[in-house]
Amino acid sequence: MAAKRVYYFGDGTADGDASMKNLLGGKGANLAEMNRIGIMVPAGFTITTEVCTEYYRLGRKMPGDLNDEVEAALAKVEKSMGAKFGDPANPLLVSVRSGARASMPGMMDTVLNLGLNDTTVQGIINKTGNPRFAYDSYRRFVQMFSGVVLGVDGEHFEHHIDKVKSARKVKLDTDLSADDWKEMVSAFKAIVKKQTGKDFPDEPRAQLWAAIGAVFSSWMKPSAITYRKLHDIPADWGTAVNVQSMVYGNMGDDSATGVAFTRDPSTGDHRFYGEFLINAQGEDVVAGIRTPQQITKVGKDLQGSTLPAMEEVMPDLYRQLCDAYKKLENHYRDMQDLEFTIQQNKLWLLQTRTGKRTAKAALKIAVEMELEGMITKEEAVARVDASALDQLLHPTLDPAAKKKANKMAVGLAASPGAATGMAVFTADDAEAWANNGKKVILVREETSPEDIHGMSAAQGILTARGGMTSHAAVVARGMGKPCVSGCGEIKISGKKFTAKGTTIKEGDWITLDGSTGEVIEGQIATLPAELTGEFGTFMKWADEIRTMKVRTNADTPADAAQAIKYGAEGIGLCRTEHMFFEGERIIAVREMILASDEAGRRKALAKILPMQRGDFEGIFKEMGDRPVTIRLLDPPLHEFIPHDAKGQEEVAKVLGVSPDEVKSRVAGLKEFNPMLGHRGCRLGITYPEIYEMQVRAIMEAACNVAAQTGKALVPEIMIPLVGYVKELASLKEKCEVVIQEVLKEKKSNLTYLIGTMIELPRAALTADVIAKEAQFFSFGTNDLTQTALGISRDDAGVFLTEYVAKGLIEKDPFVSIDVEGVGQLIKMAVEKGRKARPGIKLGICGEHGGDPASIMFCQQVGLDYVSCSPFRVPIARLAAAQAALSGGKKGSSSTA
Amino acid sequence: MAAKRVYYFGDGTADGDASMKNLLGGKGANLAEMNRIGIMVPAGFTITTEVCTEYYRLGRKMPGDLNDEVEAALAKVEKSMGAKFGDPANPLLVSVRSGARASMPGMMDTVLNLGLNDTTVQGIINKTGNPRFAYDSYRRFVQMFSGVVLGVDGEHFEHHIDKVKSARKVKLDTDLSADDWKEMVSAFKAIVKKQTGKDFPDEPRAQLWAAIGAVFSSWMKPSAITYRKLHDIPADWGTAVNVQSMVYGNMGDDSATGVAFTRDPSTGDHRFYGEFLINAQGEDVVAGIRTPQQITKVGKDLQGSTLPAMEEVMPDLYRQLCDAYKKLENHYRDMQDLEFTIQQNKLWLLQTRTGKRTAKAALKIAVEMELEGMITKEEAVARVDASALDQLLHPTLDPAAKKKANKMAVGLAASPGAATGMAVFTADDAEAWANNGKKVILVREETSPEDIHGMSAAQGILTARGGMTSHAAVVARGMGKPCVSGCGEIKISGKKFTAKGTTIKEGDWITLDGSTGEVIEGQIATLPAELTGEFGTFMKWADEIRTMKVRTNADTPADAAQAIKYGAEGIGLCRTEHMFFEGERIIAVREMILASDEAGRRKALAKILPMQRGDFEGIFKEMGDRPVTIRLLDPPLHEFIPHDAKGQEEVAKVLGVSPDEVKSRVAGLKEFNPMLGHRGCRLGITYPEIYEMQVRAIMEAACNVAAQTGKALVPEIMIPLVGYVKELASLKEKCEVVIQEVLKEKKSNLTYLIGTMIELPRAALTADVIAKEAQFFSFGTNDLTQTALGISRDDAGVFLTEYVAKGLIEKDPFVSIDVEGVGQLIKMAVEKGRKARPGIKLGICGEHGGDPASIMFCQQVGLDYVSCSPFRVPIARLAAAQAALSGGKKGSSSTA
Repeated sequence: MAAKRVYYFGDGTADGDASMKNLLGGKGANLAEMNRIGIMVPAGFTITTEVCTEYYRLGRKMPGDLNDEVEAALAKVEKSMGAKFGDPANPLLVSVRSGARASMPGMMDTVLNLGLNDTTVQGIINKTGNPRFAYDSYRRFVQMFSGVVLGVDGEHFEHHIDKVKSARKVKLDTDLSADDWKEMVSAFKAIVKKQTGKDFPDEPRAQLWAAIGAVFSSWMKPSAITYRKLHDIPADWGTAVNVQSMVYGNMGDDSATGVAFTRDPSTGDHRFYGEFLINAQGEDVVAGIRTPQQITKVGKDLQGSTLPAMEEVMPDLYRQLCDAYKKLENHYRDMQDLEFTIQQNKLWLLQTRTGKRTAKAALKIAVEMELEGMITKEEAVARVDASALDQLLHPTLDPAAKKKANKMAVGLAASPGAATGMAVFTADDAEAWANNGKKVILVREETSPEDIHGMSAAQGILTARGGMTSHAAVVARGMGKPCVSGCGEIKISGKKFTAKGTTIKEGDWITLDGSTGEVIEGQIATLPAELTGEFGTFMKWADEIRTMKVRTNADTPADAAQAIKYGAEGIGLCRTEHMFFEGERIIAVREMILASDEAGRRKALAKILPMQRGDFEGIFKEMGDRPVTIRLLDPPLHEFIPHDAKGQEEVAKVLGVSPDEVKSRVAGLKEFNPMLGHRGCRLGITYPEIYEMQVRAIMEAACNVAAQTGKALVPEIMIPLVGYVKELASLKEKCEVVIQEVLKEKKSNLTYLIGTMIELPRAALTADVIAKEAQFFSFGTNDLTQTALGISRDDAGVFLTEYVAKGLIEKDPFVSIDVEGVGQLIKMAVEKGRKARPGIKLGICGEHGGDPASIMFCQQVGLDYVSCSPFRVPIARLAAAQAALSGGKKGSSSTA
Repeated sequence: MAAKRVYYFGDGTADGDASMKNLLGGKGANLAEMNRIGIMVPAGFTITTEVCTEYYRLGRKMPGDLNDEVEAALAKVEKSMGAKFGDPANPLLVSVRSGARASMPGMMDTVLNLGLNDTTVQGIINKTGNPRFAYDSYRRFVQMFSGVVLGVDGEHFEHHIDKVKSARKVKLDTDLSADDWKEMVSAFKAIVKKQTGKDFPDEPRAQLWAAIGAVFSSWMKPSAITYRKLHDIPADWGTAVNVQSMVYGNMGDDSATGVAFTRDPSTGDHRFYGEFLINAQGEDVVAGIRTPQQITKVGKDLQGSTLPAMEEVMPDLYRQLCDAYKKLENHYRDMQDLEFTIQQNKLWLLQTRTGKRTAKAALKIAVEMELEGMITKEEAVARVDASALDQLLHPTLDPAAKKKANKMAVGLAASPGAATGMAVFTADDAEAWANNGKKVILVREETSPEDIHGMSAAQGILTARGGMTSHAAVVARGMGKPCVSGCGEIKISGKKFTAKGTTIKEGDWITLDGSTGEVIEGQIATLPAELTGEFGTFMKWADEIRTMKVRTNADTPADAAQAIKYGAEGIGLCRTEHMFFEGERIIAVREMILASDEAGRRKALAKILPMQRGDFEGIFKEMGDRPVTIRLLDPPLHEFIPHDAKGQEEVAKVLGVSPDEVKSRVAGLKEFNPMLGHRGCRLGITYPEIYEMQVRAIMEAACNVAAQTGKALVPEIMIPLVGYVKELASLKEKCEVVIQEVLKEKKSNLTYLIGTMIELPRAALTADVIAKEAQFFSFGTNDLTQTALGISRDDAGVFLTEYVAKGLIEKDPFVSIDVEGVGQLIKMAVEKGRKARPGIKLGICGEHGGDPASIMFCQQVGLDYVSCSPFRVPIARLAAAQAALSGGKKGSSSTA
């Protein structure tokens, strides 16, 4: 016996159910399910995805006995709806839609009102007493059918409608009469004849089969094939066809149509929420021509609406709708987004799906549903999009105030959150004004490391140039400060800037929305981040579930304190180079770089030592006994020296050398590809004295703080950019000498770890031998991505966006780990590392450490922890919990 | 029973043999072997390497019963040599040497004359009647023993000798008398007492055991440990100790000493060759104080020597020596380098080892030994160092002429071979002078792509700046032209340069030795490359043996022709960008780059099309039906535009745009890390029209040449810098469109291949999916090394040399494939590629393709071919044969 090909649904029964998505497609399975739980859905049937495959196997022909099954199902539909397909007196009209396993662009969408012809249209007129409605429906059908089934260009019809309108001297479709539409039907059919050489099919069954065939054919349209290729969807999945009775909300004042959410999608409040229109079609609600009415009285009051609520004017139907929504929410165990139609006092549900919601609502709904006993903690934690959590962690602009404001310009949304302050144009001004208690926004063409103190003093940063990975953007994200970067619309000159005719002078108030990239004139009220009680409850659940630790990337005591507030359990990456720029020390750093020999360098390093020690003491004090991984100097030395003549002259003056000497040293340090140049441990090898100073500063600080606080500090010293195990072995040996010296001097028996970044393909490939020398690995996925893909992040803008746009890559590999390529290297390094040194501590400190998809990958390969910027710590905690729920394995070490 | 610890050798017998290297060390095994085949070697014994291990196991103590075995062996030695160790009347003196499995720096070298003291020295005086000889030997012993066994700094002794000489008012050691040396012995012993606090050991057995202990101890000296670490030699291998009787060639006119080669090590001629001195010690031959005599009469005649040959003055001993050398060469089946001593009419062989030889001699000897039936073809092919073959492929300077010449300066030996010509200082001059039939040397501060035509016209290139990988060096090697680069000693100003006081003006003759880096004044005679009959025979054998094909990297018809002459079987890499610089086309290329839109680019590309087609036609004609792989445009566009203001102004003028426009476009193209920037297939994706033009040029050229010649051309189109399979798939699709157009236009059914470079780690990691779209892979190991190691080749100079010097890496990874890291990626890509597409064609086109060690690796992983610059093709052919002999597997495809 051949497999069943057609699945009926209607009248609270269905041949299929929600579990049959592969066979019935997502839409068909859902329609069946709604019927099964007793929701009134217009009857219909689903032709299975297997028939699609059969159709192609037969050379684009329908299987012979499909007709019988369709006729049998159609008979059931007719009985359910009390109308007959093609019947002149009481015609049944249907919609035909495609429905694959997953929603898929490129597939045939919808044909409505199928079954209409010059005869049946009279039946509709008789039934509704509304010829305009009937002919409007008829012409819509001809238009849609001709477009999606017969492939006639829609412009022909639009063009004709315009002609008629201009002849009638009217502007809107609604101004056309029944007769206008009636004439239009004939004209449309003539267009079809001219374009296709064939008559428009009048026979309802011919229409039906043509539509079914069109759905199947659309499966092999080039756009669908391309989409499947891009998303690895096999061609043999096929699509189902859904044929469903039409119902109408525009059959009089006993008819209506509406949309509703089972809870408030904006706040998450537990109240039924929605709008409806009497005597209207679904599209009228969306079109906004008429003002919709609220469904509940509460809603009416909250909105201050003067129109009666459905609860008031259709109390019976309202009760039916309430029954339905509760049933649906209980059944699907999540907030639902419903569409319904009331046709002559009968309620039909047309669709239910999981409702979209704000991050705030998602969190509230998840927590409340758990408390209601509807879902488990695990489900609650799984429900909230980790990335969206970002919205809750930053102040936002008051929407009401924002609506009225003057939006001057839009740049890149480089670092989220809202900030308001007075415009200043130099870093020094920012610092000075802030010291005087003023709130400032730092406005620059672009920022450089010399601006750090000003960025730190400002509420937010606005730059005219630079992308999402520019200095301003990266540093602002690290600081958790709002930033709009690359805002080409603003023209800065001296201490003012202009955009769209508005000029902002120094001291004028401006507001930035770093989540949208908007630059707004004046002082706009901001709402603080709402880390409400639900947030705390929710994050506690996430922490109970996750198995990976979450650390932070922090370079200063302030960052460290912020991260702890957000739940960080340690520092995964403390960069020592940012400290080099602060205050006086940059002078000593430059002196060190410009020294002509080791003695000169050591002299300058001796000046830096106490400052670095102080930095580390501050961080250790903040972190208590949480682990702190400190990376030794990484960037090439030329980053610390100005590259312009004026800056070089200043340096020369301060250091008492000739400008030519500075210039020549800078020229000597110039590199073709600095990313692949003399940096990381390569500096440590050629200038061992630098690392010696840093290790001494770390160990002295650790001993001092441990002595003061009595906490069991375990500093983790990290050597960057290792490619050869011998680099690590050689530097480790040198570090050990200094460490032992300090421990002896301080009479301390402090423990410590020495490990390495894995940020070069060679390091990952030889992780087994490297692990013999390393007590921990931290995956530096920024550089690992740059090298594995051969893509400079700073230069990728011109082609990477085009790659994403053309579908060559799905996600920016600098945002989300390239699992297929870089992921292999990480996996390899994890396996080789653990094999060579069981219990080796493994973490990630690239920016990917705060990206949920990447965190999922980290869980899968079994890392012990992820580390990210302070403001992403809650996101990482949630993402780690979700990753644990999805079944990734736990790392080997429990002390990360 | 304990294992035998001491192995005796002497009198034509030996306990050990050549197979026992692990136990006896290399030296000990060889001494045993010589005895076994009846060569007279001074008797002695070897203490095994196992004893060394035992010594350390016992806490640096000798095993108890070692003494008995040593005494037994010593008794045999005494019997053999007719003297007794420590005997006052007839003392036996011995040497003590270390001898590990492999020769190893850091180990104790030699103590000679051991057994001397104030008593035994009288025995030597009595035996020789030569007190000066006796005391000189004595003080040498004290000096050596104190240094290597007692660890006394040699400077103390040298200092004392100088003091005595100056007191005696003499300059040379030879001016000192027996009494002087006698006094010196006492003084030396006093120094030892002062430095070590102990008396110098006078008892011969105490001396012997101290020396044996010193050899064992030297196994654990830091320098030896470091060396073992670097070369992965296990500590438990241990070292053997060789104790051997001393013999002397300076005991009168019946004594002599000499060195000899069984064939001429310079020419390879099959004649016994060597020198000797009567009444002399080995070191006298080397020291050059006395003029040595030839061993054979033929040698005497060839050298024009007036001194009698050994063949004449010691005919009996000469015959004995001939018997010995023949026996040794036959036994070792290779040319031997011998040391011998005649002590009072008795011939002793002290050493035999495989003789060092020139490349020319190596080749000749290998071929002749095969013809003599001494070795097989395979052995002959294995015998010649492939790298050394380079010497035979370039003209060389006439050594006699060179000796007398004025060497002005030395730079880097950037591209081998000798060239002589008139100095010119611009590329245009070089071209103009060459067109007038003059030979020129192009002298530049450094070269840039604009100089290509001048480099091409010159005999050789000299630059003041730039390293081994500078533009001049890379291009010259590619052209096979001699080049001296980075010669900082020359100061160029205008059209002249100066070095060491000599000034060379335009038109003055200079000569370059690109193999040594020398710059020589005047016109020096060069000898042409001698690709003699033996060379042809030898390369034929290599070709019979090898399984990998050898292709060449060639961008011009001239390169292609040259490579074919050297045996290239195809082109593995034809770079299209070098063509972009030639003549008029650079203008069109710049027009294309500066165009503001696609239409503008297409207009400029239309001008380039016929020129590129012409390029390819030329190459296809040269190559006949050999495969030709053409790489589409790879470098970033900014490489084609001048970066200085003047150059930009010129471009602006030629193209009729404003200099600011050029400047701004150049600024827009600037990249932080161009190596990882907008290049390779990324250009193809963003500017598809460039690749379309190139593919059209390739296919039109192929069709035209195939039609003219009737040869079955199969162009191989190569897409560079692929990281994602979708890049390749997308570009391949676009190429196919153009290809089908051309084939239709040309009514051709030419076949072709489309493949990719594997030069990014991600490409290697995902080679399985990439292979589904690629018909061949070519490993671009230059970029693969840069990315896998995260090292920019252009910037690595400052640290990579230090890495090699410090032993962190063994070989420059840009010269020889980093097997441990990059090698893993290649292996992975080969396996994944073959699995996904059996029979996929696999080759290498990085500069490693001409490096013998890398070629060995290519054989091991099973590549189908290697490709290298034309002048390295013979080296690659030989290296491939040697790789095949060493047992690598053959590639899957036989049509590479």
